[in-house]
Order: sequence, then structure tokens, then C-alpha cells
Amino acid sequence: MEPNTAHGTLHVVGVGPGDPELLTVKAAKTLKAAKVIAHFCKHDKKGHARTIAEPYLAPSVRELRLAYPFTIEVAVEDPEYQRGIQRFYDACAEQLADVLAQGQDVVLLCEGEPFLYGSAMYLFDRLKERFQTVVVPGIAAMNGCWSQAQLPMTHGDDVLCVLPATLPEADLTQWLKKADAAVLMKIGRNMPKVRRALAQSGRMPEARYVERGTQANGFSQPFSDCGDTAPYFSLVLVPGRKGAR
Amino acid sequence: MEPNTAHGTLHVVGVGPGDPELLTVKAAKTLKAAKVIAHFCKHDKKGHARTIAEPYLAPSVRELRLAYPFTIEVAVEDPEYQRGIQRFYDACAEQLADVLAQGQDVVLLCEGEPFLYGSAMYLFDRLKERFQTVVVPGIAAMNGCWSQAQLPMTHGDDVLCVLPATLPEADLTQWLKKADAAVLMKIGRNMPKVRRALAQSGRMPEARYVERGTQANGFSQPFSDCGDTAPYFSLVLVPGRKGAR
Ligand SMILES: C[S@@+](CC[C@H](N)C(=O)[O-])C[C@H]1O[C@@H](n2cnc3c(N)ncnc32)[C@H](O)[C@@H]1O
Ligand SMILES: C[S@@+](CC[C@H](N)C(=O)[O-])C[C@H]1O[C@@H](n2cnc3c(N)ncnc32)[C@H](O)[C@@H]1O
Repeated sequence: MEPNTAHGTLHVVGVGPGDPELLTVKAAKTLKAAKVIAHFCKHDKKGHARTIAEPYLAPSVRELRLAYPFTIEVAVEDPEYQRGIQRFYDACAEQLADVLAQGQDVVLLCEGEPFLYGSAMYLFDRLKERFQTVVVPGIAAMNGCWSQAQLPMTHGDDVLCVLPATLPEADLTQWLKKADAAVLMKIGRNMPKVRRALAQSGRMPEARYVERGTQANGFSQPFSDCGDTAPYFSLVLVPGRKGAR
Repeated sequence: MEPNTAHGTLHVVGVGPGDPELLTVKAAKTLKAAKVIAHFCKHDKKGHARTIAEPYLAPSVRELRLAYPFTIEVAVEDPEYQRGIQRFYDACAEQLADVLAQGQDVVLLCEGEPFLYGSAMYLFDRLKERFQTVVVPGIAAMNGCWSQAQLPMTHGDDVLCVLPATLPEADLTQWLKKADAAVLMKIGRNMPKVRRALAQSGRMPEARYVERGTQANGFSQPFSDCGDTAPYFSLVLVPGRKGAR
């Protein structure tokens, strides 16, 4: 199906990891011009992407709040969860489609970089055949985090592996052994597993934990100083081995 | 050694993959305020990062041109090359140090994201103990390329591997088999090897080639439509397998 050009365009915009100055000039322009924005959020809370975008939005902007029916972290393995989240994304896509079909552009906000583990992808995938789409990249969370921690990640022919900490412990350990540089995402409730995988792979000494990178109160510290819990906005950096010089 | 606060600050600034609107608001601000910039380039040619930064620079800006003594791609294995490039980075670092020691800030430009395979890291590594440093992240080349190609890369617990195509063929093949999503960087003169590794790993059907992503005349196409040469500004994207929905 060819997108109908009388319809509005879907803009998927990455807003970066937290610091509102880490949006691109293109993203800032798109937000300033936006008449309708959409963003994921939890129940009655303001979404994180929405908070980052705040300084760039017109007061008159219309907002489509896409409130998760449950928290993303719970029982992802449960088939009931899978069905629920599919229905949720389907319903969100239809909500956006209604506005787009009226000839109105919609700007869908996404934390960090949209095409790295971003929920916005699920709406993009559902709408891209029917509507024109523009994707504005954002500074990825890991990218903001290693800049703030001042950790050069890959030199020469270092391989970088980006690993969701939701993987089984044995897999994480194997990946950490093989990778030159690694990033562990989604560590929140997986801290004890992450600690064991770092220890077993021998990568603990170089591992650095970053919490709320580039946000207010963001900080980094050696992973070995961490406890067994971490908030949603946290990740672990293991810089490459082929190193400097 | 503690950095001397009477000295200038080294700002390492990522300028993104090519489109001048893909700099961050922070990078644009830093460039506008810059009195002295430094950038790598080849002989008498303007460096790519310098070209991207152009619209943001004051006409009076002072420029430190860091001209490579030879092309980065030649005979990297040769120990003579290694010694030559070390001496070159040492000399560049001293050139920047002289200006910083006079209390003057220096803004070092870097294509894409500085801490992913950026030459700026070699100067950062040499100067970070002696001077205060600020690192402003940039949109990585891969990030700009997958946005332009509109390819969502990682869903759920997909692992992403970033692979320099300078690695041996057997290694590339193994990595491509194991990875869910992959990016092949530095493919220029490695196209025949990349083709064989994609074929042997069974990843050819999904592989997409992107040339001069986000630059004027940038484009993307299936890798299978490519010939045996590629320019410097090109990479290959293999999206994750756990996919959509
Ligand atoms: C669903 S993923 C979204 C990733 C995002 N699209 C990106 O560009 O990286 C959420 C994960 O990103 C990481 N994250 C996002 N923002 C972060 C920040 N400011 N500091 C540390 N980690 C962050 C955390 O690991 C979190 O579990
Ligand atoms: C020395 S690395 C620098 C990478 C950069 N710091 C980044 O953020 O990705 C150079 C490689 O980046 C890739 N690259 C840089 N800019 C690109 C662009 N606009 N389009 C495609 N590939 C690009 C090419 O693979 C090239 O060989």
C-alpha cells in the first residue's frame, strides 16, 4: 500500500537520554513546529520523553498520552502479558492513525534513540505502510552515559556488544567474555545477575555503572561499589580492551 | 595530576554523521562560542567534521588543522605505521596543550560520536589528566544511517554487535552468526570480505548498505545490489531478528 499524501506524516523523534540540550537541532525544530505530539507514559505520570521535550513545545500543543496498561517490567514471559501489550500497541497505532488520516502530522516522542529498544518502533512498524514517516535520530542512552562518564569505548577493531540484562545469566557471561566493549541495558531488577555475569567473565574491574546519565543528579561509579538494586534509568559500561595510545 | 583550573578546557564535540541539523543543541552552542577549534583532516583537504560544523562557527574562529601524515587505511599492521601515527597523535596533543596552557579553551571536532572509533579519543586520552575536559556526544554514524534507512534495529532482548570490517573474515562470520542485530563499520576496501562473511553467516538477505548516511546524496540499498568497492562513508546494517509486533 502506498502512503496517502493527503494524510499527515508520522515523525518519530528521539529526544536523547535526559539533558534537554542533547536533542538534535532537527528534533528541536520538529518539536517547536508540532501541533500534535504523542508519548508513552505510566498511568497518571508524565512520560520521561515528554519531560525532556518540555522546553521545546508550544503551549497549545495537543497531546496523545499513551498510558501503558501495566508496567513493562512485569512477567514479560507470561503469554497474557504478550497479548495485552500487542492489543495496547494496536490501540495506540489506531489512535495515531485517526489523527494522521485527518491530514494532521503527529510527532511521536521517544527516549534516547528510537530504533534501539524504543517502544516507538512498535507504532512505527504498525503505521509505516499507511503513512509517510520521518525518523529523527536521538543520542542513545549509552552514548550519553559514556560521554558523561568520559569513557572512550571502542578503539581500532574493538567489537562493541549491546546486551539487554534480561538475557539468561549464562548468555550474558558468554557475551561479556567475547566482547571487547560492552553495554548492559535494562539492568534494573537484574543487578544480582549482572554482578554474577561480570564476575564470571572477568570483566568486573573495568565495569562502570551509570545512573540517570545526563539527567539532573546523574552519576557514575565503579560497578563493584553498587548494591543489588538499580532504578530504571541505569546501565553498565565495559570499555574496549584494545585501548588507547 | 589534578587539572590546572587556570588552564583552558578541552571540549570534545561529536558533530554527527553529516546533516548539520543532526548536531545536538549543546554541540551547536559550543561551536558558536568557540574561539579555537581543532580538527583532523587529510593534507590540504577540509576535514569532514569541519564541513559539518561550518554553519555554526564564528568567522573569526582560530583553527588548528591536524593533517594526517598518511591515510589511515594503509598498512595498519606495519609497525612503522603504528610508530608514525603515535608520533602524530603525540604532536597533535602537544599542539592543543600549548593553547590550553595559555588559558584558552579548545573545541576538538569529531565525526559522529567521539567515543566510537573516533580519532579524537587519542587526543582525549593524552590530555585528560592535564586539562579539564567536557565531552559532548554526537549522533553516531550507524544511528544516522538506520534512521535514514528507516530500519528499527533492536527489539526486546536482541543483542546488537558493532563490528569493524577490518576483522578477519572468520571472525566476522562468527559474530554475524551469533548477533541478533549487527552493524559493519569501515567496510570501504573490505567489501569482498564483508560479502563472504554475510553469505557464510546467512545474513545476506536482511543486510542493508548505507552510503553517506544523512549527507547530501546519501542513500541505502540491499547489500546484495552492491559491487566490490565502497567509499569511506559507508556501513552495513543487519536488523535484529526478534522483530516487530
Ligand atoms: C527501553 S530501553 C530504551 C533505550 C533508548 N531508546 C536508548 O536510546 O538507549 C530503556 C533502557 O535504557 C537505559 N537508559 C535510558 N535512559 C538512560 C539514562 N539516562 N541513564 C542510564 N540508562 C538509561 C536503561 O538501561 C533502560 O533500562
Ligand atoms: C573512524 S570511524 C568513525 C565513526 C564515528 N565516530 C561514529 O560515530 O560512528 C569511520 C567509519 O564510520 C562510518 N561512517 C561515518 N560516517 C558515515 C556516514 N555518514 N554514512 C555511512 N557510514 C559512515 C564508516 O563505516 C567509516 O568507515
